[in-house]
Amino acid sequence: MPEHAVRFLPDDVTVTVTEGESLLVAAVKADIPIRGSCGGKGTCGRCRMTVREGRVRSAGYGKLTAEEIAEGSVLACQSVLETDVLVEVPPESRLAAHQVEQAEGVIEDSDPCRHDTCEPLYRRVELILSPPTLDDPRDDASRLKTAIRQATGLEAVDLDPEILPALPRVLREQNWRIAALLEEGDRRTRVVAVTGPGEEPLYGLAVDIGTTTVVVHLIELGTMTTVGVRGTYNGQAVYGDDVISRIMHAGDGENGLPQLQSSVMATINDLTAELLREKGITPSDVKVAMCAGNTTMTHLFLGIDPGYIRLEPYTPTVNEPPPVRAGRLGLAIHPRALVHCLPGIASYVGGDITAGALYTGMAREEALTLFVDIGTNGEMVLGHQEWLVACSCSAGPAFEGSGIKFGMRAMDGAIERVAVSKGGGRVEVATVGSMPPVGICGSGLIDMLSALRRAGVIDRSGQFTAEPDTPRVRDGEDGREFVLVWRDRTGRGTDITINEAEIKNLIRAKGAVFAAIRTMLSMVGLPVEAIERIIIAGGFGRYINIREAINIGLLPDLPLEKYSYVGNSSVKGARLVLLSRKAREQARELAGKMTYLELSVGNDFFDEFVSALFLPHTDMTLFPSVQD
Amino acid sequence: MPEHAVRFLPDDVTVTVTEGESLLVAAVKADIPIRGSCGGKGTCGRCRMTVREGRVRSAGYGKLTAEEIAEGSVLACQSVLETDVLVEVPPESRLAAHQVEQAEGVIEDSDPCRHDTCEPLYRRVELILSPPTLDDPRDDASRLKTAIRQATGLEAVDLDPEILPALPRVLREQNWRIAALLEEGDRRTRVVAVTGPGEEPLYGLAVDIGTTTVVVHLIELGTMTTVGVRGTYNGQAVYGDDVISRIMHAGDGENGLPQLQSSVMATINDLTAELLREKGITPSDVKVAMCAGNTTMTHLFLGIDPGYIRLEPYTPTVNEPPPVRAGRLGLAIHPRALVHCLPGIASYVGGDITAGALYTGMAREEALTLFVDIGTNGEMVLGHQEWLVACSCSAGPAFEGSGIKFGMRAMDGAIERVAVSKGGGRVEVATVGSMPPVGICGSGLIDMLSALRRAGVIDRSGQFTAEPDTPRVRDGEDGREFVLVWRDRTGRGTDITINEAEIKNLIRAKGAVFAAIRTMLSMVGLPVEAIERIIIAGGFGRYINIREAINIGLLPDLPLEKYSYVGNSSVKGARLVLLSRKAREQARELAGKMTYLELSVGNDFFDEFVSALFLPHTDMTLFPSVQD
Repeated sequence: MPEHAVRFLPDDVTVTVTEGESLLVAAVKADIPIRGSCGGKGTCGRCRMTVREGRVRSAGYGKLTAEEIAEGSVLACQSVLETDVLVEVPPESRLAAHQVEQAEGVIEDSDPCRHDTCEPLYRRVELILSPPTLDDPRDDASRLKTAIRQATGLEAVDLDPEILPALPRVLREQNWRIAALLEEGDRRTRVVAVTGPGEEPLYGLAVDIGTTTVVVHLIELGTMTTVGVRGTYNGQAVYGDDVISRIMHAGDGENGLPQLQSSVMATINDLTAELLREKGITPSDVKVAMCAGNTTMTHLFLGIDPGYIRLEPYTPTVNEPPPVRAGRLGLAIHPRALVHCLPGIASYVGGDITAGALYTGMAREEALTLFVDIGTNGEMVLGHQEWLVACSCSAGPAFEGSGIKFGMRAMDGAIERVAVSKGGGRVEVATVGSMPPVGICGSGLIDMLSALRRAGVIDRSGQFTAEPDTPRVRDGEDGREFVLVWRDRTGRGTDITINEAEIKNLIRAKGAVFAAIRTMLSMVGLPVEAIERIIIAGGFGRYINIREAINIGLLPDLPLEKYSYVGNSSVKGARLVLLSRKAREQARELAGKMTYLELSVGNDFFDEFVSALFLPHTDMTLFPSVQD
Repeated sequence: MPEHAVRFLPDDVTVTVTEGESLLVAAVKADIPIRGSCGGKGTCGRCRMTVREGRVRSAGYGKLTAEEIAEGSVLACQSVLETDVLVEVPPESRLAAHQVEQAEGVIEDSDPCRHDTCEPLYRRVELILSPPTLDDPRDDASRLKTAIRQATGLEAVDLDPEILPALPRVLREQNWRIAALLEEGDRRTRVVAVTGPGEEPLYGLAVDIGTTTVVVHLIELGTMTTVGVRGTYNGQAVYGDDVISRIMHAGDGENGLPQLQSSVMATINDLTAELLREKGITPSDVKVAMCAGNTTMTHLFLGIDPGYIRLEPYTPTVNEPPPVRAGRLGLAIHPRALVHCLPGIASYVGGDITAGALYTGMAREEALTLFVDIGTNGEMVLGHQEWLVACSCSAGPAFEGSGIKFGMRAMDGAIERVAVSKGGGRVEVATVGSMPPVGICGSGLIDMLSALRRAGVIDRSGQFTAEPDTPRVRDGEDGREFVLVWRDRTGRGTDITINEAEIKNLIRAKGAVFAAIRTMLSMVGLPVEAIERIIIAGGFGRYINIREAINIGLLPDLPLEKYSYVGNSSVKGARLVLLSRKAREQARELAGKMTYLELSVGNDFFDEFVSALFLPHTDMTLFPSVQD
């Protein structure tokens, strides 16, 4: 088969592909992370590239405009090479690493682990054994086990058979003062090595496997210090934005699942390798990993087909996966390291939510807490020390830009703040990095919706009103639209617009979140006002303006001081569970206690959802602070 | 290096060895099992061979007579090849397989397992799961675990991560009627496979790893039927007869331990392969093994140096070894099969005794039982449901022929019954297989001692009396000796004799056993008469005449109806533990309950031993039924 060279700009990376392979494959080979919201079906238009030299053959152009096509834009997933080519990849087609929040590694003083006796999943225990005598000639193994029981209080201690051949020599050479390396498994603890007393550091990973982003904390287990944090986009993104498209790709032929498994593993391995290189640590010094992800991410990470998650009755293969050896999974740390995943409770409430709920401490408090993690999905937990209810709704994608033509993540050039003058004539925007606007991110979408409503451009149902007398409201290709930024003020050569269908998408998304909250409350017979604390988690939550989110009816109308932001509670919870035995017990207890509310069953949710398809809501008494 | 061919007769096997290698090495290569009581030091004289053609250079001739040397006899361990040679291996130098008791596999109806709910260590459980619904959308893994708990009552069930990828498909393809394969580990049970309901048989091994012999039972786990039994000599025999010489060889350079480990493994693998071939079963169908051996054998089997067992304070590395995967050990069954060893309690009371005590049921009965296993060592357990005391004495080797020039095992030509006329003039012997006598085995030695005493040939201290007026009593190379069989009546061309030093050896051996029994009784303050049941175990026990054993003071003078013989209780106990969960619990409990009595500590044993160095005893009141 003939081969062609592809040179990517501005990266200036050249790779060779076989004739018939797509530009998307070439980008994967060139290690250029590309968005593929639709999973390579040519419908989302996210993987747009511009061919500067050479020729490609495109099977389709999806949502690209005639203008874009004339300029040489193609969809990478739909285009195969006919010659060598020079291609430019615009910023909005990229998954860029730099925006992924990396500052979560700072350990607050309130970290529960600071106050507990912390016992990491893998740890060194220094022991002094009494030497055998004729009156006490117990075998070396029993002597070791007894010493460990006395030092740790652990009853369920096993010995790895591998340690036995060297055991008698080490005990006697070290004059009965030794260190035992303990590995906690599913429910039992295993002695995996016995050495002289030593100070070599031991490391562990806490990993948040998000649908969109992956964050790795590298932790020194002896001192329990986070020595480094890295995050980037999940390499699976090329196969689709949300869990549903990933699940569909997993079921697509024999390669789907292995591709997804190896791409997320590559993401974690790359992040880990960077951290280790930076600190001069070898992979074999990393002895354990604790991962938190939603149920689909956990399945894919473990190489398990998540197919049944999207088929009624929405059944995962496993909610509480047993730990697996890193070597089996392909995780590039010590091959015998145990890799744990936090237990989830249902197909759409996974280990990341268990981690988050654990981290907030809500299961140990009297106050009624609502925990909301809006990422690619919207997951919520309501409750206190007596009970917990959890549910999930498909809310996030719209706020992350899915189904919104100019939607994008919070990268340079993303509009994050929007103000609109009465009547809609003037618009002011602020962008991430103060760069010329190329699209609009989640917080910008919330602001925009609120601003358009207040400006009278749209009505409470999201329809354009007759009122505005401004060229910004016009008929576009997909119906009535509002021009947010004129072409000459953008960084992309087209007007940035929002149309009625997109506004309806956003309203459905915010309505789903609010309806889910109300359904949980009605299940336990409590009003919105009963909530004493609302904790927002997830990268999206960091940037939103809570006031505006209340204004559009996304979040309950409660005093702002009841709100707090917890950041990436998934990785923080994973870190806690990695380090504290008490936290591990609590995590199991919490996962066992949480009641899952399946919103597709029964009509409560549907009624609530329909009522919430207004700005802010059909029932204005629920939003007393919002002026009509 | 020049090479030489060695042809062995009557086997007619030819092998090639490098110059400088010994005839013993050649025999190992030719797969001819040779006795090596002294571990190849040239002192025991067991490895005698006759060179028919060619030339060897011998470093020494040990106990060979001038006559034997003249006939071309050499010690294989001391002789290196100078040319190609033709060598004859006499029967008494061989470890022959055919005598190892093979009939122990017959399962008596009283087998406790017949009456319990038997749950083998590896088993198939048929399950019907309720399919998931919207009201019950639990994950497949929880559904499986719940079904297993309901079916088995097991609480501690883990899932092997390997089963998860296929789990959802199997459950649905089989319409929720499946079979789970359960593997019991140290304390928890693991689901290692999930399949459609099936009838493919599963197999397990019960193995007795004796110092002298190894016995393997192949058991179909579903029906709990023993489908075949094989036994042979432990391939380690070439490195020494008793545990002490094995321990010394294990510490001899880098190769000692691996040689011992691989030779016992080869023995078990050979036996297993024969059984599997015979029944047309593939090794991977064997899913589990349960082994019972003394502490040294267990250490060597697991590749652990038993060195500290023979050094004060006699400390084993491990009494309760964790199970190990067959692949790690080199046991040629399914590589993932778990290999368990029964727990022992001390350096000289191992898992074989736990197995035996378990099998007798003595730990669950009110009657005071004495369990005596005379093999290469003599181990004893005394007790009932309230308490158990165990001890060990080095008794066996003499009765197995060690330190007795014409001693041999119960093979064809071994004298097993002896009658001597008053004054010693006439001797009648019976041999195994009614073949011409070549030596004398354990039961023959007991008979002989008793007969010589009754005939007045020896006195109560074992010395020849002045009385006998017969050419049978004469001065030999090693002092006074008694001719048991004249040369022309033997199958070996020399007179078969016993000398005074050998008789003293036998008296010390029987004295040690009886002194051990008395020491245990005195520890608990009970007289000999308190014993309600005496159970004799071990291959040696099968052939001895209890009456004669009492006459020489080896066993207590109690009515013969209190005695019973249990055969190879080590393998029988291992089989029980392989098949019955209750037996596994009892074995652990029993090992925990047994008090070990170290006879080398304190003077009770030494006093008892000195008193027992008479026939039958210094204190004749202990043996009222024995006529002086």
